[in-house]
Parts: sequence; C-alpha cells; structure tokens
Amino acid sequence: MSVIDELLSVPADWLRGDGEENEMVLSCRVRLARNLERKPFTHISGAEDLRDIQGEIKEAVAGTAAMGEALVIDMDDILETERMLLAERRLLSQEMVQKYQNRSLLVNRGEGVSVMVNEADHLRMQVLESGLSARDAFRIISALDDELDEHLGFAFSDRLGYLTACTTNVGTGLRVSAMVHLPGLVHNNDIRQVIDGLRHVKLTVRGSYGEGSEVMGNFFQISNSITLGHTEADTVEDMESHLKKVLEFEKKARESLLREARSLLEDKIWRSYGILKSARLVSPKEAMGLISAVRLGIGLGIVTDVALTDLNEILIMIQPMHLQRLHDRAMKPEERDRIRADFIRSKLNKQ
Amino acid sequence: MSVIDELLSVPADWLRGDGEENEMVLSCRVRLARNLERKPFTHISGAEDLRDIQGEIKEAVAGTAAMGEALVIDMDDILETERMLLAERRLLSQEMVQKYQNRSLLVNRGEGVSVMVNEADHLRMQVLESGLSARDAFRIISALDDELDEHLGFAFSDRLGYLTACTTNVGTGLRVSAMVHLPGLVHNNDIRQVIDGLRHVKLTVRGSYGEGSEVMGNFFQISNSITLGHTEADTVEDMESHLKKVLEFEKKARESLLREARSLLEDKIWRSYGILKSARLVSPKEAMGLISAVRLGIGLGIVTDVALTDLNEILIMIQPMHLQRLHDRAMKPEERDRIRADFIRSKLNKQ
Repeated sequence: MSVIDELLSVPADWLRGDGEENEMVLSCRVRLARNLERKPFTHISGAEDLRDIQGEIKEAVAGTAAMGEALVIDMDDILETERMLLAERRLLSQEMVQKYQNRSLLVNRGEGVSVMVNEADHLRMQVLESGLSARDAFRIISALDDELDEHLGFAFSDRLGYLTACTTNVGTGLRVSAMVHLPGLVHNNDIRQVIDGLRHVKLTVRGSYGEGSEVMGNFFQISNSITLGHTEADTVEDMESHLKKVLEFEKKARESLLREARSLLEDKIWRSYGILKSARLVSPKEAMGLISAVRLGIGLGIVTDVALTDLNEILIMIQPMHLQRLHDRAMKPEERDRIRADFIRSKLNKQ
Repeated sequence: MSVIDELLSVPADWLRGDGEENEMVLSCRVRLARNLERKPFTHISGAEDLRDIQGEIKEAVAGTAAMGEALVIDMDDILETERMLLAERRLLSQEMVQKYQNRSLLVNRGEGVSVMVNEADHLRMQVLESGLSARDAFRIISALDDELDEHLGFAFSDRLGYLTACTTNVGTGLRVSAMVHLPGLVHNNDIRQVIDGLRHVKLTVRGSYGEGSEVMGNFFQISNSITLGHTEADTVEDMESHLKKVLEFEKKARESLLREARSLLEDKIWRSYGILKSARLVSPKEAMGLISAVRLGIGLGIVTDVALTDLNEILIMIQPMHLQRLHDRAMKPEERDRIRADFIRSKLNKQ
C-alpha cells in the first residue's frame, strides 16, 4: 500500500461536519510558520541545506505527542497528480505542488495535524478542525509548537517575534482561517457589505478552495491578515468574535428568507437535491451550487435525510484528482463531469 | 355522489398508454358531426327547439350498444368549473364551456365514447383511444353513427354528404386526430419541415391541448382538415399512413440523438425525472417539458421505473380544474404550482 493509499484509507476527521455552528462553518484551520535558527530560509537554501533541514524536522516531528503516529510523505517519492491530490485535501499548498524537491509532508491519522517541511518556511504546521473551532485548533497547534521549539529552536526576534521568509507572516506566524457557508447573505445581497466590514478589521475573504478562486457554492474562506503587533491569543479571539458576528448576520438572512420566500426556497433546495440524486453530468461549478442549496436545506431543517458529513465528503471527493484516483486514470473534464455525477449519486442514494 | 364525481371515479381508458406506437402516440380521436333532419341547426334554434333536440338525442344515445350504460351530464346542472374540467378531460369543447344552456354530454364508463348534444352541431360524437388507433376508433364510431342514424335520421344531402352547421365539416363530418410526442424532431429542428409537409397534404398541426395553444412538451395534435370529397375510410387511412411517416422520422431523429449525444440526453432525461420527483413548485409549461423528457426516456428504454400510464394521468391531473377539484377550492396560479408539484411527486415517488 502506497503512503497516499494509506492516507486515503481513513476519512479526514474534519469532514465529520460536527462542532459548534457546524451548519455554517465547515472547518477552522490554524497554521504556524516557523523557521530553524541558524539555517538559511528555504528560498535561499541549496539542496544540501534543504535535505539537512528536512531530516532534522522529520525526526523532531515524528516524536511529538500532538502528531501521534504520523505518515511521512516525501514529495520526491510521489507523482505530481498525488501532490495535487494532497492540495485538494488541503494538506499541501499549490506552491509545494510545483516546488517539491527535498520537501515533505507529515500528517497524522485523521489529517487534523500536519506539517509541511521546506515550503516557503522550514515548517508550516497546520491544524484543521470541524466547525467553529479556532480556539481548540490553536490549543493543539500551540502544544505542537512548544514541543518542536524545544527540539528544534525556532528563529525568533525579541522585537519582531517569529521570523519568516515572507514579511506578511513575521510576528506570530499565525494564520487562522474559517471556511464558512453564507448562502443567506449572498441571496439578500448583504454579502458585499459583510466582506467590506471584514476587510475593515483586517480580515481577508476569499472564494472557497484556494486563493483568488471564484466564489462557488457560497463558500467563503475568512482569515486574518495581521501577524505583527498582536498576540496569538488575541488573533484567535478576534477572529472568533468577528466570525460570530458574520454568523449572526447569516442567521438573520436565513430567517428572513424563510419568512419571505419559503416556498421558493424549499423548491430550490429540493430541486437541487433531486438534481444531485439524478443527474448524469455535473460540472464543478454546478455541483458546488447544488451542494450549497442542500447544505442550506439541512441547516434550515428542510432536508433531513442527508448528513453534513456526506456533503463535506462529496466536496472533497468531486475534485479532479480525487475523481481520477477513484478510477486510477487521467480524464478529460467532460469525463470527470460524468464520474462526478456518478459519485454524487452513489453517495446520496445510499440512504 | 354527483355525476362528475361518478365520472372521475373510474380512470379514462385512453390514459392506459397502450396500443400501437404508444411511446410516440398518446391517443387517437375520431369525431363525427351530425344533425337531425327537419330541425334547425343549433345556432338558429330557440330554447324550446334545443330542449326538444336534447331530449330526443339523449333518449336515442342512451339505448345504443356502443355507448353502454352512459353517464348523462346536463350542462345546466353543473358549474362552470365542472364544464372546464370536462374540457380538460377532452370530453367538452371550449365553446360548450361557455354556451351550455340546453346542452348535454353523454359519456360511457372509461370515457372512450362520448356525445356532445347541441354543440355547434346537434351531435358531436367522439371516440378516444390509446396509441395509434384511428381505425379502431373509427370502427366504434361508425357503429354508433349507424345505430343513431336509424333512430334519429341525420341531415344528409346526396350531393354534399352530411350537412353541418359549419361548412368546414360538411361531407363526412369526420375529424380524425392524433396526439403525438415528437421530441426528436423538435430537437434536431426537422419539426418545421415535417409540419410543412403535413400541411401540404391538408393535415392540421397544433400544439397540444387545444386550438392555437403554444407547443408545450413537444406534444402535437395532428388532424385532417378535409371533409368533403373523401370517403370516411380514406380519411382514416390517409391519416394513419401520414402519421406513420411522421413516426418514422421521429424514430430516426431519436436514434441519431442517442448516437450523437447519448450522455447529454441521458443527463437531461434523468435530471428532468429528478426534478419532477423533488420540486415543490412547477408551472404548467415546465411540467410539460419535464414530462416530455421522461416520456422520451421511457421510449428509449432509459427510464424503466415509471409507466406511460402514470405520465398520461399526470398530464390530465395537473391541469387547473383537476388540481382545484383535488382540493375542492379555487386557487391562484402560484398555489396551483405547489399543488401540481405535490401531485407529481406523490405519483412518481409511489414506485
């Protein structure tokens, strides 16, 4: 069994779709950027340095309590399609898909805790949890951070904080983000105002699934953009408190939708569910829209025979590399539309 | 139990959806226009004359073998909404919905044989059968015609044939029509050419469900327009032979659709079926389009878990007066969209 197959043999914990506010918040993620003292940053390291760093970090991470029995995936040993698959699972950055030599991913069973080695920084630790769980995630990553700091010694300046390859991460090196589903705010057109408000408090909002991507299915990724001049704890607190405000707006939008257009809304939700359960060709964009409607239906108590965990799994599994791995061959987009529809049907009709 | 409830208590035979070419031909209908000798035509008759004619015809029809134990529905005794309901069942003309005094409908159990009394002509006999069945229908109506002629004596001229109120019916008084489903020809854009060809041989083509109505769901009504200078048997033969040519074109169109766009076609069919089984609001026009796609799916062997008879019943039952009768009250169109969707779902999900 290849290390990728081993990873895929256990479903990712964060897909469970539980946790606080799980109907609106798919997941929270915290990430810490760290670098070893007395080693050049990744982008100015030669192959030998990179291998030294790689070896040192792999050894240190493997022994931590937070990671448990981690899978170690050396990027040089796997195919580009497999790196793309890891990116689809939110374990690898796009950058590392391309720049993979002397780089590794360490990931625990359940995929909640992972470390990219030799990405832009020597270490990019990540904790990914279901629901509104930034504090929990932060507790876990802090423990890992402390443990690793003891073994490895991280580059730190008393004046600036943690030193990172890119100035945008200097200070805490902390990026907290949440994947949220805001169909109510999109529908009532308040989403623009909400996004402006979040930007005003220095939060970044993107369409789901990657940087700069189009908003699909009303999924948004909200993350902090400030790492300097705030404590880590404040960053997490602020993020949660702003998120909660957004969720309040979304709840109100949903309530008013139900009040003012219940029939139309129910029709849209049930149709979307019906199409997902019967279509033979589904594009990525349409799939996201349909899943969004069904997810809203679950949140409103309209759809009761499908679990959030199944929808979350579908979101991951209908991505190109996941579909291709299911059938163990490359496919053109049109063929993937068919395989995507097949997968969705099999998942939703099993109930 | 009212006479209308009695009628509705037994499903119409022609909805069975059996008979020759049943996948493309919903039904065939033959109609004979006849008038009593020595009585003024309906439109120039006073109330007393109309009542005399009405009584005479009711008595004669009630005793015929072709009609069996007929229901007698006097238009004066029922509501306008009930007359509209009878029109939706294809038993009454729109004209008779409006002009109803001293008029009657006689209809057998199963609704295959019926006679409108004092419509434009004293008698408008109708036989309605499932599938490509114009000859059968003609045999039945001829027997009724002969039987009634013996009792009543029909206005007839040796030079012109049967005399009728409108010159377009003089001669045979025979109108043969077929309700056909031609999605293949609509899709490949050959429908225009086929309709032109039919008009060239003096056949009339209309959208389904009434005169001048928009084509919905790719259903077309094809009927003869000539009643003078042809024998009745020739009219029926010609109609069937032209219909068979149209059906050949439709079959070829379906085959080439399957060959060239099977995936897209299957997707469209299954989606339509999925929407019908799940939507909460369906307009008449959308319903017809979706039913058309599922009907095509049955014809192509793609959809196997729904019967033509159920789709046929849906076509009748989702009309406004039928929906209102189900719930025994008047409804606005938007509310009917909901009730329509409910009815369709209950029918298709019972499997």
